[in-house]
Amino acid sequence: MRRVIPSLKVNETIKEHFLLTSLQTKLGKNGTYFEMTLADASGEIKARKWDLTEKDYQLYDVIHKELPQVVLIKGITRQFQQTIDLKVFYIVYPDEETVISISEFLPAAPIDVEDAYLELEETITSIRNESLKKIVGEVFHLYKPFLAQYPASIHGHQGYGGLLWHILNTVRLSETVIGLYPNMLNRDLLISGAILHDLAKIKDYKLEKGIVTKVTDRSKFVGHIVTMAHDIRETARMLNIDVNSIEVELLEHMILSHHGKGEYGSPVQPSVPEAFALHLVDVLDTRLGVVQHLLEKTPQGEWSEWSKVLEKRIKKIRLEG
Amino acid sequence: MRRVIPSLKVNETIKEHFLLTSLQTKLGKNGTYFEMTLADASGEIKARKWDLTEKDYQLYDVIHKELPQVVLIKGITRQFQQTIDLKVFYIVYPDEETVISISEFLPAAPIDVEDAYLELEETITSIRNESLKKIVGEVFHLYKPFLAQYPASIHGHQGYGGLLWHILNTVRLSETVIGLYPNMLNRDLLISGAILHDLAKIKDYKLEKGIVTKVTDRSKFVGHIVTMAHDIRETARMLNIDVNSIEVELLEHMILSHHGKGEYGSPVQPSVPEAFALHLVDVLDTRLGVVQHLLEKTPQGEWSEWSKVLEKRIKKIRLEG
Amino acid sequence: MRRVIPSLKVNETIKEHFLLTSLQTKLGKNGTYFEMTLADASGEIKARKWDLTEKDYQLYDVIHKELPQVVLIKGITRQFQQTIDLKVFYIVYPDEETVISISEFLPAAPIDVEDAYLELEETITSIRNESLKKIVGEVFHLYKPFLAQYPASIHGHQGYGGLLWHILNTVRLSETVIGLYPNMLNRDLLISGAILHDLAKIKDYKLEKGIVTKVTDRSKFVGHIVTMAHDIRETARMLNIDVNSIEVELLEHMILSHHGKGEYGSPVQPSVPEAFALHLVDVLDTRLGVVQHLLEKTPQGEWSEWSKVLEKRIKKIRLEG
Amino acid sequence: MRRVIPSLKVNETIKEHFLLTSLQTKLGKNGTYFEMTLADASGEIKARKWDLTEKDYQLYDVIHKELPQVVLIKGITRQFQQTIDLKVFYIVYPDEETVISISEFLPAAPIDVEDAYLELEETITSIRNESLKKIVGEVFHLYKPFLAQYPASIHGHQGYGGLLWHILNTVRLSETVIGLYPNMLNRDLLISGAILHDLAKIKDYKLEKGIVTKVTDRSKFVGHIVTMAHDIRETARMLNIDVNSIEVELLEHMILSHHGKGEYGSPVQPSVPEAFALHLVDVLDTRLGVVQHLLEKTPQGEWSEWSKVLEKRIKKIRLEG
Amino acid sequence: MRRVIPSLKVNETIKEHFLLTSLQTKLGKNGTYFEMTLADASGEIKARKWDLTEKDYQLYDVIHKELPQVVLIKGITRQFQQTIDLKVFYIVYPDEETVISISEFLPAAPIDVEDAYLELEETITSIRNESLKKIVGEVFHLYKPFLAQYPASIHGHQGYGGLLWHILNTVRLSETVIGLYPNMLNRDLLISGAILHDLAKIKDYKLEKGIVTKVTDRSKFVGHIVTMAHDIRETARMLNIDVNSIEVELLEHMILSHHGKGEYGSPVQPSVPEAFALHLVDVLDTRLGVVQHLLEKTPQGEWSEWSKVLEKRIKKIRLEG
Amino acid sequence: MRRVIPSLKVNETIKEHFLLTSLQTKLGKNGTYFEMTLADASGEIKARKWDLTEKDYQLYDVIHKELPQVVLIKGITRQFQQTIDLKVFYIVYPDEETVISISEFLPAAPIDVEDAYLELEETITSIRNESLKKIVGEVFHLYKPFLAQYPASIHGHQGYGGLLWHILNTVRLSETVIGLYPNMLNRDLLISGAILHDLAKIKDYKLEKGIVTKVTDRSKFVGHIVTMAHDIRETARMLNIDVNSIEVELLEHMILSHHGKGEYGSPVQPSVPEAFALHLVDVLDTRLGVVQHLLEKTPQGEWSEWSKVLEKRIKKIRLEG
Repeated sequence: MRRVIPSLKVNETIKEHFLLTSLQTKLGKNGTYFEMTLADASGEIKARKWDLTEKDYQLYDVIHKELPQVVLIKGITRQFQQTIDLKVFYIVYPDEETVISISEFLPAAPIDVEDAYLELEETITSIRNESLKKIVGEVFHLYKPFLAQYPASIHGHQGYGGLLWHILNTVRLSETVIGLYPNMLNRDLLISGAILHDLAKIKDYKLEKGIVTKVTDRSKFVGHIVTMAHDIRETARMLNIDVNSIEVELLEHMILSHHGKGEYGSPVQPSVPEAFALHLVDVLDTRLGVVQHLLEKTPQGEWSEWSKVLEKRIKKIRLEG
Repeated sequence: MRRVIPSLKVNETIKEHFLLTSLQTKLGKNGTYFEMTLADASGEIKARKWDLTEKDYQLYDVIHKELPQVVLIKGITRQFQQTIDLKVFYIVYPDEETVISISEFLPAAPIDVEDAYLELEETITSIRNESLKKIVGEVFHLYKPFLAQYPASIHGHQGYGGLLWHILNTVRLSETVIGLYPNMLNRDLLISGAILHDLAKIKDYKLEKGIVTKVTDRSKFVGHIVTMAHDIRETARMLNIDVNSIEVELLEHMILSHHGKGEYGSPVQPSVPEAFALHLVDVLDTRLGVVQHLLEKTPQGEWSEWSKVLEKRIKKIRLEG
Repeated sequence: MRRVIPSLKVNETIKEHFLLTSLQTKLGKNGTYFEMTLADASGEIKARKWDLTEKDYQLYDVIHKELPQVVLIKGITRQFQQTIDLKVFYIVYPDEETVISISEFLPAAPIDVEDAYLELEETITSIRNESLKKIVGEVFHLYKPFLAQYPASIHGHQGYGGLLWHILNTVRLSETVIGLYPNMLNRDLLISGAILHDLAKIKDYKLEKGIVTKVTDRSKFVGHIVTMAHDIRETARMLNIDVNSIEVELLEHMILSHHGKGEYGSPVQPSVPEAFALHLVDVLDTRLGVVQHLLEKTPQGEWSEWSKVLEKRIKKIRLEG
Repeated sequence: MRRVIPSLKVNETIKEHFLLTSLQTKLGKNGTYFEMTLADASGEIKARKWDLTEKDYQLYDVIHKELPQVVLIKGITRQFQQTIDLKVFYIVYPDEETVISISEFLPAAPIDVEDAYLELEETITSIRNESLKKIVGEVFHLYKPFLAQYPASIHGHQGYGGLLWHILNTVRLSETVIGLYPNMLNRDLLISGAILHDLAKIKDYKLEKGIVTKVTDRSKFVGHIVTMAHDIRETARMLNIDVNSIEVELLEHMILSHHGKGEYGSPVQPSVPEAFALHLVDVLDTRLGVVQHLLEKTPQGEWSEWSKVLEKRIKKIRLEG
Repeated sequence: MRRVIPSLKVNETIKEHFLLTSLQTKLGKNGTYFEMTLADASGEIKARKWDLTEKDYQLYDVIHKELPQVVLIKGITRQFQQTIDLKVFYIVYPDEETVISISEFLPAAPIDVEDAYLELEETITSIRNESLKKIVGEVFHLYKPFLAQYPASIHGHQGYGGLLWHILNTVRLSETVIGLYPNMLNRDLLISGAILHDLAKIKDYKLEKGIVTKVTDRSKFVGHIVTMAHDIRETARMLNIDVNSIEVELLEHMILSHHGKGEYGSPVQPSVPEAFALHLVDVLDTRLGVVQHLLEKTPQGEWSEWSKVLEKRIKKIRLEG
Repeated sequence: MRRVIPSLKVNETIKEHFLLTSLQTKLGKNGTYFEMTLADASGEIKARKWDLTEKDYQLYDVIHKELPQVVLIKGITRQFQQTIDLKVFYIVYPDEETVISISEFLPAAPIDVEDAYLELEETITSIRNESLKKIVGEVFHLYKPFLAQYPASIHGHQGYGGLLWHILNTVRLSETVIGLYPNMLNRDLLISGAILHDLAKIKDYKLEKGIVTKVTDRSKFVGHIVTMAHDIRETARMLNIDVNSIEVELLEHMILSHHGKGEYGSPVQPSVPEAFALHLVDVLDTRLGVVQHLLEKTPQGEWSEWSKVLEKRIKKIRLEG
């Protein structure tokens, strides 16, 4: 996990690998220059290169439409308005030998993946209803091999482990809510829904170099909500559990209704208390994930960029404790 | 099919079976009386009974909450404001021996059921894509035994054959549309979607005495759209057709998207031209079915009752040809 | 706390105090009768009284518009459709001597009030920012004497302790969320907002006989959100805390924005992560409170009445564990 | 009708006339170049010209804001990502002598214009109500001389004959619908509305060089819906038909209500079954026209560009028959 | 104009004519009684009659569905909760000889009708643009004979002179606005629009006994907005004013756009400053008219009934001056 | 106040100070050039500079992100399409000595500031309710020193005196409305609300060089509506006026509700007639201010740019008087 950017100081000469995430030609007083965004797992920095050479233009032609790419940058940091930027001396692709995985430069969820798996599996074990325990266990292990690499969405909880983190949060919030309404909520049902609700997003996203760059046709034709409904029925059938049993129907209902409203993609709306709880807990963590993702890219004391999801900017501000 | 009501004249003494669809006690100058709605397959008539006897009260207690019921009415027709109503002499249940099916009093779709089945089956035979033809044929025969008894909705296309009529209209409109856009629309896909799109409504409605009085829990927990998506996948699997083939995925998409928008219950929106065509053809016939159902209950030259679906009243008016 | 209703069996003769919550005259075959709803802290039961006496009519005239009232009922339980109702022999007001507080018949939040106060006060003590701790402590003690009697809303969390319960849940959910996003959320600010956010509802509701029957003019003219903003500023001024300090401005912002959107009554929208968190946690508990309140009145295995807030009915169903 | 583009192969040197529809200067590694879109009646192709000469810049200055223009292009086709583009050697205006009408390069509706006129006129002849037949005939002939050149809208059914095509489709769909609901729908009224409903769009659009580039002030001040209402009344008056007759009032109503809702421009909403039918049939064909227009510009197997009208992309995909 | 109600005192025996606006049978301890609303031009009073006679029941049968009716009431006023009601001794129709017009009992706009006509005609005279002056004068005189009897809407500005009052207010507010934006607004155009904008409502309402009880079919098929557009064009034609002149087109636009948005019935939206001004001035007076009408029926110090138009109740409250 | 632009003629050589409001580099046939917008208090003109020198680039670097700036321009006017533009010879900053205030180049409200203050103060004096008069007078004098410099919004009523102008218009319209509904509206309350309603916008805007370039954090955290509610309460407290008196509560209500709906920022909705009137009068003037501001920038006979607020373009057109 590469986390160089926050420790950079003004007037420091550096030679580092970064993830080049945007590259544009701009017109300055001395002709064309490059304006770049460089990233590592800890954040982003703006960089500029003047005096473009023939090699720079070749690089531009090659990688312009293939971003993000790992590049080696030599340059010097400068004070620029309130922040630091980078005046670049040269840009090169890393040698063939020094292959560097893009994932080292991506933000990662603040969780330990192995601990998270352990916690989820113990949670599955704690489900007392046998049908639910078996179906959830089976479906979870179907998706588990791919889970850690996926983000939870394209707006928040981005990066390695993002989807896993969101599932874990959903489970933990569900446990709190069960504690507040113990007579109203069936723990088995709510926990089962919490674990499965977003797993089929793995079939909605195309993962390239560790980043979700596109959605699949399937996400538009069927979508993760109905895909998981299929998974539940087909797994039940495989396990010789009656697909018309109340457990299977309600678990299916938990998944189908978890977006809460039709306009958010749920073909039916929450009709049992556990379905309401799952929907509300999912909204809570999803939106906080958007806030968190937005603030990651925002300097302390500044307003974030405009968020289409939140229909707002947010201020990154810290009270003294 | 009983169709007495439209031929009634003023001051006619009658003794007929009707379907009693509403029964209320009202307060008049001479004490309590009954206000009733009587129906047969051709329409409705208001009726009143004064001078209530102990037997009338017993009848009231028994059938009050069990409507509709077939009853035998003796009375005389009267002019009442612009319409005819019925002054009732007595009301009795039909004898045990003369059991009369409620369905004789229900409006029926203006189609011949056997001809309709024939037309749909010939349409299925004309599908050229083998996978689609097999799946559609199989699923259709699964639901066919129950089909004729169901209405298309609780707002329009009511009565015996209503769902069948709507499916037939959808298929016929689809054929016209295919004729207008032959290069854009794949006939096999559109026709397959048209036949299957609403069949699983049969699992959404509770049929009692030939009338849909309630929806099932399943309609709220899963709903007919996802139920049909399950049927398609499970039928394909049974027929050894690849569930990940483009035919199966697109047929599933046709069903899932046919309500057009999330707020109307589609978890995904139309993404291929045939899905748009099915959605639009379905809306066209569904809404005309609502208009038709509304006008059935409206006298010539009058405005209909308020329709929540159309957010309007409609005037029943006829131009001279 | 009176909780007789759930233990009633068929054909049991009883003589008990209940809270009469609705009383209507209805027309039956033998003339007019009373249809009543009787309640205690555990639920509701329907009751009917025939053979109305002059005394019954006098009672009707007196208490008809002054409900709810505690009454003494003698009657016998009967099987009626799927449930039990009560055939009433007589109804009387309780003697002057045996004054019974309405609150004994009201549902109460499932918390111990003293424990709840203790927990909230310990939470206030744990706030580390001195300005916030002082303001929150002061405002909380302003409202504390009235707090336990108020419901959280007129839709959910009804009954004695309802508002206190909602505040407690909001604080507990906030603690969980802080655990999930420790770097993003300032605990002092979120906890302070959680404790104060709904306290001024006490000025929005008119409490009569332990029940919120009306809202005050002030709730329409100013509203609890702005009232609490005033309280914060005026308390800060009284404590010699700068009203323009970032703590005061942000605490005010937490309150003003906690309904999330303008159409729900917030004049500004959440602009810091803690304000988002408070809004989302408040929505989660408020809506679950509505579900809980709705299901209290719903028999096991039935669909609830229609909820305007949820735009749905909910099914009360229990999976076997 | 020029239809060269689909038959172009890689590495083919061509010299052809095209319609230049967009022209931009871009910055490349070797300085400024032109990025162009060239079109003919069959589709579009991207083209680029490097090594810009003084003449190129003059051309740019002249035609930059006067697009589209017919130009003569010499160049060579190249493979570019998944598609073919054109490397341009030179661009010239066509000689004064070889004037080429822009309309040769425009897509045209897939109908024979003369056949379409014949069909519409026979349809008018088949109207049995004399008043309607005369008014429709007169108004149709008022607009007929201009009809063929107009598109149906700026979103779909573009190009020569587009409006005529849409009217024809509306009439044909109406005939199908009349066949499905023969008792409910008056054919004369529905057909009359279908023929007239969009004719006054001719006064809403400014046609330049065969293309609708702007809307008229009149389209904003009065609009085609009210304009046609005026036409109907004034034609009736001219033909000595009572403007207060039910035929004139209902025909006016068909036009005024055909957008269905106020927010789509109808000052009154459909209030007779024929008005509902016209509205629904119009929506059906209009939206399919948008889909058709969108897919024309989309390569097989790809997702279309984003459609603001449909709020979606559509996939151009073909099942094997 | 009869205005007795506000001066009634407790325990006063009266014998007066009133307008009976509602009449219901209710069940009391001593059997059935009548609950009535009596009105005159100054307000409403509730009344009750016990000990119903055969004559009362006959009256009930006759006038029950033909309200409102003028009746002669003898009774005594009583204190009832916070207000006064009337205990009725007898109710009779007025003698044939003493025919009393319903309009004497209707609220009337607080204007002098003749003064209002004078002011509007002087305003027309002050229009400087000859075409506008002639058209407005001609159309105004077309409607003038009917104008005074119409209310402005069914929600506000009810009663005799209501429409006239609203037009006058619209003109006066327009004059103020012209004074605030003299360079932006053309007085002739705005004043012309203000005078004509709602006149054709006279064709939308059915007037029975001085009260608008229904809307006409024409109001649903064409509506007052398009009707006035026709009037303007046809009047211009009659006066030999070019119907395509900018004056006629803009005046038509003022009318067509004055509801501001499509969902409120305007087929086009305001596109010149005068059209915005007319729309905003119309909204201002229309909504204040609704408030005024609502408060007429509300006692001092009380909240009004719920207003569907305002989506609120309003408090009738008076500050000391 | 500098107002040179409207009097410029074609082919005039000028040397004038302007406010440079936008500056962009563009690519032409002869390389890069500047495209500028120059403004003075009377309007805007486009300007272009070719043959950029090193000094031009330096200027660009310096002022590019610090606009608007006063600059001295030498150039010649040219005919360009329908309008005049300016071919620039050179651009310089004004000498240090000739400091020119930006405010000279800003549009100003068409009012005399001193007269406006006088009118408002006389209006305050005319309030008869002593509590209202004192509070309004005190709060007005708190804000008065800053008032004249602020615009009323960022969409309309821009420039020096804009807020003052809007307040004056609101007061004048209120006086007209009071004249139309004298019995319904309390003048003291409406006038008090009109004067105070937008004053706290002064704390919402950041004024830099006489222009509102940003909003303050406070505008997002608290907002001008709640800020004024605080001001009213705190001023009342200071003046020893009971903060729970009906005057203070209603004045607070006027301010809190004046945006009319929650989605426009009002935490409570208008509940007394005066609050409705203030809301409607405020909307009227605010929207006309937007129209006025939009047309200022639009040439006679043209359609304005798209207005996000109005969701329209407007045509600037003038009827002959």
